[in-house]
Parts: sequence; structure tokens; C-alpha cells
Amino acid sequence: MNAIETKNVVVESFNTDFQRRLNYEVLGRDLLNTAEQHANRRGFGVDDVTAKNHAWVLSRMAIEMQEMPKMFTELSISTWIESIYRLFTNRNFSIKGQDGTVYGYARSIWAMIDRTTRSPIELDQLYHDQFVPYIDTDEPCPIAPQTHIRPLKEAELTKEHKVVASDIDYNCHVNSMKYIQHLCDLIPLDEYKTKRLSRIEIAYISETHFGDTLHFYTSCKDGDTILVEARKDNGEVAVRGLLRTVAITA
Amino acid sequence: MNAIETKNVVVESFNTDFQRRLNYEVLGRDLLNTAEQHANRRGFGVDDVTAKNHAWVLSRMAIEMQEMPKMFTELSISTWIESIYRLFTNRNFSIKGQDGTVYGYARSIWAMIDRTTRSPIELDQLYHDQFVPYIDTDEPCPIAPQTHIRPLKEAELTKEHKVVASDIDYNCHVNSMKYIQHLCDLIPLDEYKTKRLSRIEIAYISETHFGDTLHFYTSCKDGDTILVEARKDNGEVAVRGLLRTVAITA
Repeated sequence: MNAIETKNVVVESFNTDFQRRLNYEVLGRDLLNTAEQHANRRGFGVDDVTAKNHAWVLSRMAIEMQEMPKMFTELSISTWIESIYRLFTNRNFSIKGQDGTVYGYARSIWAMIDRTTRSPIELDQLYHDQFVPYIDTDEPCPIAPQTHIRPLKEAELTKEHKVVASDIDYNCHVNSMKYIQHLCDLIPLDEYKTKRLSRIEIAYISETHFGDTLHFYTSCKDGDTILVEARKDNGEVAVRGLLRTVAITA
Repeated sequence: MNAIETKNVVVESFNTDFQRRLNYEVLGRDLLNTAEQHANRRGFGVDDVTAKNHAWVLSRMAIEMQEMPKMFTELSISTWIESIYRLFTNRNFSIKGQDGTVYGYARSIWAMIDRTTRSPIELDQLYHDQFVPYIDTDEPCPIAPQTHIRPLKEAELTKEHKVVASDIDYNCHVNSMKYIQHLCDLIPLDEYKTKRLSRIEIAYISETHFGDTLHFYTSCKDGDTILVEARKDNGEVAVRGLLRTVAITA
């Protein structure tokens, strides 16, 4: 089996935004579903790791798009493992049209936890032999690595969100892709008429549960970049994020 | 071309809820994407009607599920036109496993508007010849028609939601399937551990825009049925809905 898994998806009409382009939340889920298919076919998918009482946990994600594909575009999403460390593995993605057009790339960092203790397991030790045949260090992923986002000092409370049932995943915490939606929604609709979101990053810090309220704080780093920190009621940070916009040229 | 269009979809891992079953919002979008494919291939899809300065508008939707399919289930979603009236058309759906298992059915009622005046157009007059070859009155859709949901008199304010960018569709109003998510989220997570949502209905009354706040009022009709009314700041009703639950037996 190849190191790279590719999944073809179509940008469906009802998965697009007000400009009829794919939205980041659906793209994020398409990326994770492709990652799941990659892992599944190579023996370390959700059913395989659940059987060992383990769970994959997404630690960081960065998606950078040169252009967001329009409605009905036929996409090929590819994913591969770039590296494995003691507790983490780096998984990259490319998002291309089936005609070869490059739309963007993504980088992700994953850990695996024990479902009972919720502690990270020794990934490289326990899954080394399964992962190694599929590591691909040659495939290019020409976007910057994840930024180290520091705690925000001066930040403005921009939004509050009480966690609802549809936010919650099988691990009983807020679905990682729902955060993408909540972060994208920190930018008002009017701004999306002249700018597009070119890069989004999220670092997942602590788990959030049903009943928690997320308080989204934002800080402008420069004209184009917004830093985000989502805190829980007790002040603990749930996620940190980064949103970068560029003017729409076409 | 056949009167019935069928689209095969897989219940993707990251499109499931905390019980690893397909969620209603994703199912709703799968239904609408199948409807779009049906219309598209028969000359009255989104691009065709936009070229005439028209837009499809969903007026009512009812989805009733005997069981919500589990993660990785391979589904066949079918849709067909049951009837056409002067201003409305009835479109039905079946949701089955590719092995024939029946999961559920849905009924929908659509109007078409002029994109400039936002007024309904004479559907049967303007699209009669295109629709008639594809009407199928024989295909069964064994669920009750949409309930006529009356204005709620005694109701409790259960949730408020300020409309965000990701709620908005190409017609610049709140995406009809986002309402499904907001309605499903009126039931607390704990209740979903012992009950499942067997039927959801929505009647779309007036358009909601970015910046509006939706005030969700609920009223228990009996132990198993909740009636919902979402009102805007000015008191105008945006949608009315119905949620029916049954105890989980398996």
C-alpha cells in the first residue's frame, strides 16, 4: 500500500458559503475523513485504536488555501505521515482539483491517548512498526509550520458560545472541526465580502464538555492576522488560534 | 432519464455525533445535495434557475428516521417529485442502506422565487414541461405529511442565537439546514443518552439575515413532542418546528 491516501470529494452545493465556495468547517471534516481513511486502510483507524482502548487526539491544525474551491469542483484530497516522534505524529495534506489545480495544503499534529486515563501514550513505541512503512518525507507541503501562539495578554472578548449537543464528538468533548467554524465566525460577514480567509490555525489545549461556555478573546497581530484564545468559565484555555485574511483580488 | 435520482454517500467518521451515528444536519445536507443532483441533471438545478434569476426556496421539511445509520454505513439516498401545484412542488426522499435496509424517509415542499423581487413565481406555469416527465406518484413515502404547526401561545424561551457568517447561504439568509442543527440542539445532551430524535419538522416562514438574533421558544405538546418557534428581534416568526423523540431500545 502506498504511503499517500487520496480521497475524491465534490464541493456539494449545500456545503458552500454565501459566495458558493467550500467552507472551512466542511473542508476540515473532509481532511479528517481522508486521514481516517488513510489510517483505517493501514491498520490504525478509529476502530483499530478503539479496540486497544486508545483514541486519536488532534493537537494542532493549520490549513492554508491559495483559493477556496467553488461549488461543484471535483477535489482530490491527499494525506500522508511526515514524521513520528515519541508522543506525536505529523500528518500533512494537499487539496487539489482533479485537474491538478492546487488549492491549498494543511499540516496537522496528532497524539494518541488512553481512553480510560486520558493520558498520552507512547506513540512511537506502541505503533512504530505499523507507521514506519507509510512515512513519506519527500512529498512537499509548501506552507509554514504551525505558529507557536503565545498566551494573549491584551485581548477583547468577541463572542461567547455555550456548548451544545452538536458540538460534541464520540470522545465526549467539543469536535475539533466545530472550533474551525466558531473561529471563522469571529470575522463579520461584511469583511468576508472584501477579504478571504487564507490561513487558519488551531492549537487544542484542553478538552471542553457539554455545558461549558467558551469565551472567545481576539487580538489583532497586524492588519491581516487575528490571534484567538477560547477560554472556559474557569479561565482555562481550551484552544488558541490564528486567522489570516487577504484581500479578494479576482 | 429516470424520475428517481439516487446518490450514494458514506457516513463519514467526522460527520457523526457523540454516539457515532449520522447527525441530522449532515443528513439534511445530504438530502438537499441529492435533490440538487436530481434537479441539475434534469435542467432545473441551481445554475439553471439562477440563469433565469430564480432561486429555489425550501418551504417545509420533515425527516423521520427508524434508525440513524452508524459510522461507515454506505447509504443510498433517493429523491423524486411527488406533485406540482401552482406555487409549490412536493419532493420526497428515502434513506436506505446499500444493502436495502430502510433507515427513514423525508418529505419536502419547495417554492421558487424571483431573486430580485423575492416573490414566488408561478412554478407550474414556468416549469411545467420540465417537471412533468419526472413526476413519480407511485414511489412510496410511508411517513405522515408535514404537521400544520400553529403559532405557539404558551412557550418558554429556551435559546438565543445571534446569526453568524457560517449560518448564511448564497441567498444571503440563514441556511435551511443550519436550522436543523439549532433545533436539534434544543434537546440537552443528557436526553440524547436515553432517547433518540425520530422525527424533525421545519416550516420556513420568513428569511433571517446576518446580524439578526433568533429567539427559540419551545412548548411540550406531549411527553415525546416538542414544538418550536424561532422569532426574530421584532417578534416576527422565522421558522416553526417539531421534534419527536422515542426511547432508545437497543
